[in-house]
Amino acid sequence: MIRAAGIISKPVCEMVSSVVPPLLEWLRAHGIEAYVDKETQDCIDPRGSSVPREQLAKKVDLLIVLGGDGTLLSAARVLHGHRVPILAVNLGGLGFLTSVTLDELYPLLDQVLAGKHEISERMMLEAEIVHEGVRGERQSALNDAVITKAALARMLEFDVHVNGNHIGRYRADGLIVATPTGSTAYSLAAGGPIVHPDIDAFLITPICPHTLSNRPLVVPDSARVEINFEATQEPVYLTLDGQIGVQLQAKDRVVIMKSSSKVYLIRPPRKNYFEILRNKLRWGER
Amino acid sequence: MIRAAGIISKPVCEMVSSVVPPLLEWLRAHGIEAYVDKETQDCIDPRGSSVPREQLAKKVDLLIVLGGDGTLLSAARVLHGHRVPILAVNLGGLGFLTSVTLDELYPLLDQVLAGKHEISERMMLEAEIVHEGVRGERQSALNDAVITKAALARMLEFDVHVNGNHIGRYRADGLIVATPTGSTAYSLAAGGPIVHPDIDAFLITPICPHTLSNRPLVVPDSARVEINFEATQEPVYLTLDGQIGVQLQAKDRVVIMKSSSKVYLIRPPRKNYFEILRNKLRWGER
Amino acid sequence: MIRAAGIISKPVCEMVSSVVPPLLEWLRAHGIEAYVDKETQDCIDPRGSSVPREQLAKKVDLLIVLGGDGTLLSAARVLHGHRVPILAVNLGGLGFLTSVTLDELYPLLDQVLAGKHEISERMMLEAEIVHEGVRGERQSALNDAVITKAALARMLEFDVHVNGNHIGRYRADGLIVATPTGSTAYSLAAGGPIVHPDIDAFLITPICPHTLSNRPLVVPDSARVEINFEATQEPVYLTLDGQIGVQLQAKDRVVIMKSSSKVYLIRPPRKNYFEILRNKLRWGER
Amino acid sequence: MIRAAGIISKPVCEMVSSVVPPLLEWLRAHGIEAYVDKETQDCIDPRGSSVPREQLAKKVDLLIVLGGDGTLLSAARVLHGHRVPILAVNLGGLGFLTSVTLDELYPLLDQVLAGKHEISERMMLEAEIVHEGVRGERQSALNDAVITKAALARMLEFDVHVNGNHIGRYRADGLIVATPTGSTAYSLAAGGPIVHPDIDAFLITPICPHTLSNRPLVVPDSARVEINFEATQEPVYLTLDGQIGVQLQAKDRVVIMKSSSKVYLIRPPRKNYFEILRNKLRWGER
Repeated sequence: MIRAAGIISKPVCEMVSSVVPPLLEWLRAHGIEAYVDKETQDCIDPRGSSVPREQLAKKVDLLIVLGGDGTLLSAARVLHGHRVPILAVNLGGLGFLTSVTLDELYPLLDQVLAGKHEISERMMLEAEIVHEGVRGERQSALNDAVITKAALARMLEFDVHVNGNHIGRYRADGLIVATPTGSTAYSLAAGGPIVHPDIDAFLITPICPHTLSNRPLVVPDSARVEINFEATQEPVYLTLDGQIGVQLQAKDRVVIMKSSSKVYLIRPPRKNYFEILRNKLRWGER
Repeated sequence: MIRAAGIISKPVCEMVSSVVPPLLEWLRAHGIEAYVDKETQDCIDPRGSSVPREQLAKKVDLLIVLGGDGTLLSAARVLHGHRVPILAVNLGGLGFLTSVTLDELYPLLDQVLAGKHEISERMMLEAEIVHEGVRGERQSALNDAVITKAALARMLEFDVHVNGNHIGRYRADGLIVATPTGSTAYSLAAGGPIVHPDIDAFLITPICPHTLSNRPLVVPDSARVEINFEATQEPVYLTLDGQIGVQLQAKDRVVIMKSSSKVYLIRPPRKNYFEILRNKLRWGER
Repeated sequence: MIRAAGIISKPVCEMVSSVVPPLLEWLRAHGIEAYVDKETQDCIDPRGSSVPREQLAKKVDLLIVLGGDGTLLSAARVLHGHRVPILAVNLGGLGFLTSVTLDELYPLLDQVLAGKHEISERMMLEAEIVHEGVRGERQSALNDAVITKAALARMLEFDVHVNGNHIGRYRADGLIVATPTGSTAYSLAAGGPIVHPDIDAFLITPICPHTLSNRPLVVPDSARVEINFEATQEPVYLTLDGQIGVQLQAKDRVVIMKSSSKVYLIRPPRKNYFEILRNKLRWGER
Repeated sequence: MIRAAGIISKPVCEMVSSVVPPLLEWLRAHGIEAYVDKETQDCIDPRGSSVPREQLAKKVDLLIVLGGDGTLLSAARVLHGHRVPILAVNLGGLGFLTSVTLDELYPLLDQVLAGKHEISERMMLEAEIVHEGVRGERQSALNDAVITKAALARMLEFDVHVNGNHIGRYRADGLIVATPTGSTAYSLAAGGPIVHPDIDAFLITPICPHTLSNRPLVVPDSARVEINFEATQEPVYLTLDGQIGVQLQAKDRVVIMKSSSKVYLIRPPRKNYFEILRNKLRWGER
């Protein structure tokens, strides 16, 4: 049962100030405590009270995200380790993850309060950097962990192992390790396949591989993917969901595996995965 | 425990006549009843006794396949529904499925008799043609079911549904529905990803799609994939594992789903999936 | 100066019977002799007189094509060897070649009569089959010459030479040799690049190559492309512009080179090549 | 007639100190003045005299390059505007541009002195950055001009015009504008076709385009390619031949066109373009 709901929004104030106040009112009228994060509150009234994003997860049993896929990705990180369902409303164009429109928001909220909604569970991945044998902090991602070269560098050369087995030596601009959810994001632009979110797998998609036979690879989500670099190497970067980035140091290794945490997306009514796909990629057209 | 073994070989008689007789001797010396199919027997001595391929499955608890991936694919069909492990020896170049060399045959047979071998279970798919609402005979395949146009036809136009959900209208030369095992066969040539055989999934890979956003799709193996054609259509063909082919009639539908039967491949020692992949696709090279 | 015009149309009679009679009237009112082919005449009035397509080229100094890209391709073959400009009007959706709309037809005709139109010259290719050393009849194509396997065959294996130099041994479903005009047709679906029609070149695009490094190749239009097949081979077919097809015999060779004949397309006003491309491929969208 | 030759080498001193002294001796014994650049001289004897690279072009009528494709690319820049042929010897693996082996060096030099060699003329491109309407310094490249995002940035959004015509709005990691010579370098890794160096064209190859229909485009070398960025944008970089890089400023435009300067490569005997291609890409193998 939903007792408290949080709101995280993309801080586009015209949108927020017209959408959020009636939503808060609706929630409170339905007996639900409602919290907003600071960015959202600043759009409505900077003097009002807000809850820091990192504290929201403990206070709420529903998170309403207003924005695009990027807003959802950062909200997913906020909820990390908490089983709080997310209702993701797109404020602009249809997103792969934010496929609920404003029109559908209130009818869907009614269903959620009545416990009649469906949840799409999405796996997350975790990446850690091993520096001189010491494991660093783990970071999680819903879409992907991406290894890239610097803008002015020529290419990277690295070895990939899965569960200790050598897959190959790659010469490429970088490497994307993606979840099925991330298969429609950056990995798709790099030539990867579309993988249905119910499949327990990672995608290993090279970015501009110089070895032309280096095709995208789909491995079980039990895989421990390890990326090792040559000693003398151009600068290497690790990015998570396109939002958190860090430069590796010489001889660092990157290890990627499944996260124990998941994301619980509330399914929009009458729109399944394939329908969103068909719309976004225009597969229905002649 | 292995009491009886069958041998199926690619009928290249020079090879067969030098490899099979000592193998038969070895098997019998180890107390194992040995049967050969007719094609193999004809290479050794046409007067000798043989067992029709379709009867082999009931008689043996080990099948030794000598040849290439094509020989293995037809052997897999012979064993359909029987839990008989296959030891597949390549007589030519290394195959994805036939990765045991002649040198490795006898040491590996020793391991198999001692019960120390490992098995790689591979899912199969089944395809049926629905003609005017009547379901036809199901055919199974280890690699793929392929829909294609005639050589002189321009392209096909068809709709694909997964579990009743419309995925899209395709305008293409055809469509490949592949198992993970088949992901390194025809689907790879058509631009599909490599999918590890432990993943429970189908690949849906279009052949030369005119809609450029029509990317390969990986769906759970619980999927029921249905392909529907326009009423007025060029001739359409269905092929299984590149070996069995049939022309569809107007308004036929093709339905593809997971088979209840599996293939049990005996793993070569010291060669894992990724090593075979790296060798075949030359991923290790600079 | 235009004295006589011919009309070739896709025989969709509702369209033809509403478009062609006023067009004939307009032409005659402007002092131009007008001829229609039999298919077109049959739509208007089967008793009226028509000119066989193969005789049109000698009678006219302007050809008006009503239909889609397919109608234009067959009209191009009719004009082979004659320097007659083509005004190609699309009756359905925008085509790469038939980009003039009905609305634009009469204003453009005014420009053509005033000699104020622009011409886009398009190269054609010619293909000949060499059977046991004897060269067969040459066939020309505006888009492409395509080598393909039979629907139920596995793949073809063939060698390609350019000006006598061995390019490689291909294992593939087939091969497309396309003009720049054809680069946006079948070759694009097979993964080929888009080549501007002002470039003097052929594209050599493999269809589903098993050797993953077999990328599309662009060679000068002075190239003589030769395709040789193994002696023992699956059935092989040659298709020109997707309209004329023939089965090769064992040991036949296919030779493709530039045609001495060109196609002269009248450019639609205010629509350049890139605009048509952007529209057809939706490159402008977000 | 060759009176003076310069030597530029990749400064791998073991190689240089064994190859260059006998080469200098050979050249002088044949009455040719010989100059080395500083990097090369330092490997042999730091006290010896050398000529700065930028002065070599005026002094010599033959340039011998020892190294790999990278060494040749920088040598090409040194010769910019001078019609000096280059004899490029690979010291490591076979390069697309440096396909002469050490074994072939002296026989080929004999041919060059006798005027019996063949030249492969290669077009170069030039790129300039237009900052607030002011055109910056032009830089030339033999392979490519590459626009890229920063490592931690998400993607770029930019418009491309060719001769003032809008091609499309791109959302991608970047864009490669390559010469035919560069078609086998970075552009190939990004999915571009192979374009024969005798074709007068540029390739416009997007890097990881989010619009899946954004295929590589080949345009005439008379094209003036212009890339415009949004006002608010991630950092953008321009790199030439992977060797010279610069960060753009807000609202900068990049303009790329054909250079008036060419590179004159001395052809290795008995190795044509396709043979090098087949070797490098392993097209001959089964």
